[in-house]
Amino acid sequence: MNKHQATIEKMGQTARRAFADLAGASDAQKAAALKAAAKQLRMGREAILSANALDMQKGKERGLSDAMLDRLMIDDERLESIASAVEQVALLPDPVGARIDRNEQPNGLVMERIRVPLGVIGIIYESRPNVTADAAALALRSGNAVILRGGSEAIESNRTIHKAMAVGVAEAGLPEDAIQLVQTTDREAVGAMLKASGLIDIIIPRGGKSLVARVQDEARVPVLAHLDGICHTYIGKDADRNKAIAIAVNAKMRRTGVCGAMETLLIDQDYPAPGPLVRALIEAGCEVRGDDMIMELDPRTVSAEPVDWDTEYLAPIVAVRMVQGVDEALAHIAEHGSHHTDAIVTEDNEVAQEFIQRADSAIVMHNASSQFADGGQFGLGAEIGISTGRLHARGPVALEGLTTYKWVVRGTGQVRP
Amino acid sequence: MNKHQATIEKMGQTARRAFADLAGASDAQKAAALKAAAKQLRMGREAILSANALDMQKGKERGLSDAMLDRLMIDDERLESIASAVEQVALLPDPVGARIDRNEQPNGLVMERIRVPLGVIGIIYESRPNVTADAAALALRSGNAVILRGGSEAIESNRTIHKAMAVGVAEAGLPEDAIQLVQTTDREAVGAMLKASGLIDIIIPRGGKSLVARVQDEARVPVLAHLDGICHTYIGKDADRNKAIAIAVNAKMRRTGVCGAMETLLIDQDYPAPGPLVRALIEAGCEVRGDDMIMELDPRTVSAEPVDWDTEYLAPIVAVRMVQGVDEALAHIAEHGSHHTDAIVTEDNEVAQEFIQRADSAIVMHNASSQFADGGQFGLGAEIGISTGRLHARGPVALEGLTTYKWVVRGTGQVRP
Repeated sequence: MNKHQATIEKMGQTARRAFADLAGASDAQKAAALKAAAKQLRMGREAILSANALDMQKGKERGLSDAMLDRLMIDDERLESIASAVEQVALLPDPVGARIDRNEQPNGLVMERIRVPLGVIGIIYESRPNVTADAAALALRSGNAVILRGGSEAIESNRTIHKAMAVGVAEAGLPEDAIQLVQTTDREAVGAMLKASGLIDIIIPRGGKSLVARVQDEARVPVLAHLDGICHTYIGKDADRNKAIAIAVNAKMRRTGVCGAMETLLIDQDYPAPGPLVRALIEAGCEVRGDDMIMELDPRTVSAEPVDWDTEYLAPIVAVRMVQGVDEALAHIAEHGSHHTDAIVTEDNEVAQEFIQRADSAIVMHNASSQFADGGQFGLGAEIGISTGRLHARGPVALEGLTTYKWVVRGTGQVRP
Repeated sequence: MNKHQATIEKMGQTARRAFADLAGASDAQKAAALKAAAKQLRMGREAILSANALDMQKGKERGLSDAMLDRLMIDDERLESIASAVEQVALLPDPVGARIDRNEQPNGLVMERIRVPLGVIGIIYESRPNVTADAAALALRSGNAVILRGGSEAIESNRTIHKAMAVGVAEAGLPEDAIQLVQTTDREAVGAMLKASGLIDIIIPRGGKSLVARVQDEARVPVLAHLDGICHTYIGKDADRNKAIAIAVNAKMRRTGVCGAMETLLIDQDYPAPGPLVRALIEAGCEVRGDDMIMELDPRTVSAEPVDWDTEYLAPIVAVRMVQGVDEALAHIAEHGSHHTDAIVTEDNEVAQEFIQRADSAIVMHNASSQFADGGQFGLGAEIGISTGRLHARGPVALEGLTTYKWVVRGTGQVRP
């Protein structure tokens, strides 16, 4: 066992003990811990901002891009939003202890399924230091212990944020070890987390595609993640023209860097107004890469190459293709999609229902922008991520997704014949 | 890619296509397919029994134990019970399409979670050929495609049973490829299944500990399984004497070879009648391995070694220990348990509730025999297995455990501000 494995094993064991202690914590205690943590974050302003200044300085020396530096930066406004996000999580309903279902057997046994925390959650993330507070808050709110591993470029910021969270948790009488931060920036520590079966119950990577791919590839612990968000919008032949334009432009252009952004637009051959749709996208500043039929609509379009249908641009570029009916739209999505979010725009509810039933996506939308693919927009309060896997939680994962259940069987002395 | 990988890849691809076709299948169609399959099993009597006779003959030549030969054997009675089990599954309610929850956002978007099949399920099992029909029926009932890989000793029986099932499915107009059987008995085919990420969504091993351990160790595909059933019964100080004896004897002795059988009995030091309890177990034919205090109770007890607390006997042997209160009982279970089924016997509901809340087991029971740990007994109709993992389904896994959900978002043209 190398030294990182030993470190992670020790952290895992203390996390498991903390998790066992949390099992007895009340809703009120967990909420109080998060409120105390938010207070500690505000009180720790000076320490956090100067630690962040150190990270920023090192980041500049290491030549981080302006975008990365911006993600790393914490100022007063951002610190306040980190603290108030933790308070918001404190206000969310505690999923633990809820009864999922109940049945009574003829022999008098009563079976119930009761929500319980998942256990020990490992979060592996990149530059944004707010994840340290966000992820810890969501994990603790749902009774889980958490082991956080942030990016090396944010280590000083993460340490001070983690410290504030842990002090708040301890103030509320809950185990400080419920929130732990991996202190080393060595990459091998990530490998040790990914292999810590029996100690870490689930790994949630939050970051770019290369991080998620590495985690999915190496992990022996189950992973809750999405790799790609290749989201499609299919404009059916009976789509309302105004809705089609508004939804397509919003789905692509509102924010191009989010996983719910549309990457491919499929237009039905019988949709009567493809020209205005393509023009609206171009005029919103989007590059349109189309098939031959799309290219005939506007001279400003460029030709789509085969690779375009499988590309998550995360940029103001869209691949556009004409399709023949819902079957061809679904076949395209089945071949090129990433099971994230796919949408249909149509006034024909029967066609919409067929699309909804047959599209194999975590989120299927009718007459709405795929940019709504977000836990907050779904009324879940906050999300720890979006899952494109099929096991456990799917789509936006919030507090409930960080729980499992136990079966509780109550009898009066029954024995099995 | 070796030839087994190529074979499994091809089976996985046809299974995925079949799964996509099944997405449109109605409840009635799936039920009709299973009824047709049951009919085919009965009509195939001659082929199945003579294939089984061949397996039995080879098994005897290979020197299989009597117990293994018994598990392998199919006679008229067993064939009828295989067919009628398939019919029973046809009668279970279809979980697919059920609405889990629904919320409406202030912007008018309506979010629903709808149950959908998991996808392609790989079942890896050992000698009992009835699993071929059982597992296929449960998978198909819930809209999944299935790739079956049975033990080499049952290959001829499995082929004929699989054939009957597939013909039934095709008769009902559903894709025959929804139920596939790996035709080779080469062990490398199992390895190929375990690594078929993206083609197989989940692997369910059904068999002994060495099979399950191999699957859990090698799999890159998520696994739904339990490895051990080290089940505890804790007799609290306020346990009713008659219930304590009846439950302990039943939990251990009803059937000793099942995963829900009690392996360790924890008796509270303040429970007033430990002697009659230990005697009842001994007189029921059970070997009692106890700690020093237990050994003082009866000269027929033997001394428990440290390994006994971690042993799943699956035999008429029980490890018995005196503990001081619910804390020590829970600490013992946390250290030695396998998160399967643990029970408390007490008339003190407060202590029972504490045990229920703090025991980290898939199934926690109060005043009932752990032998009830079975999907049928839980009112689930039939089970594909019992999961001691924390992700996805936990405890007895039936049709619902073979589903996931999709988010369906219905709008009227909403775009995100």
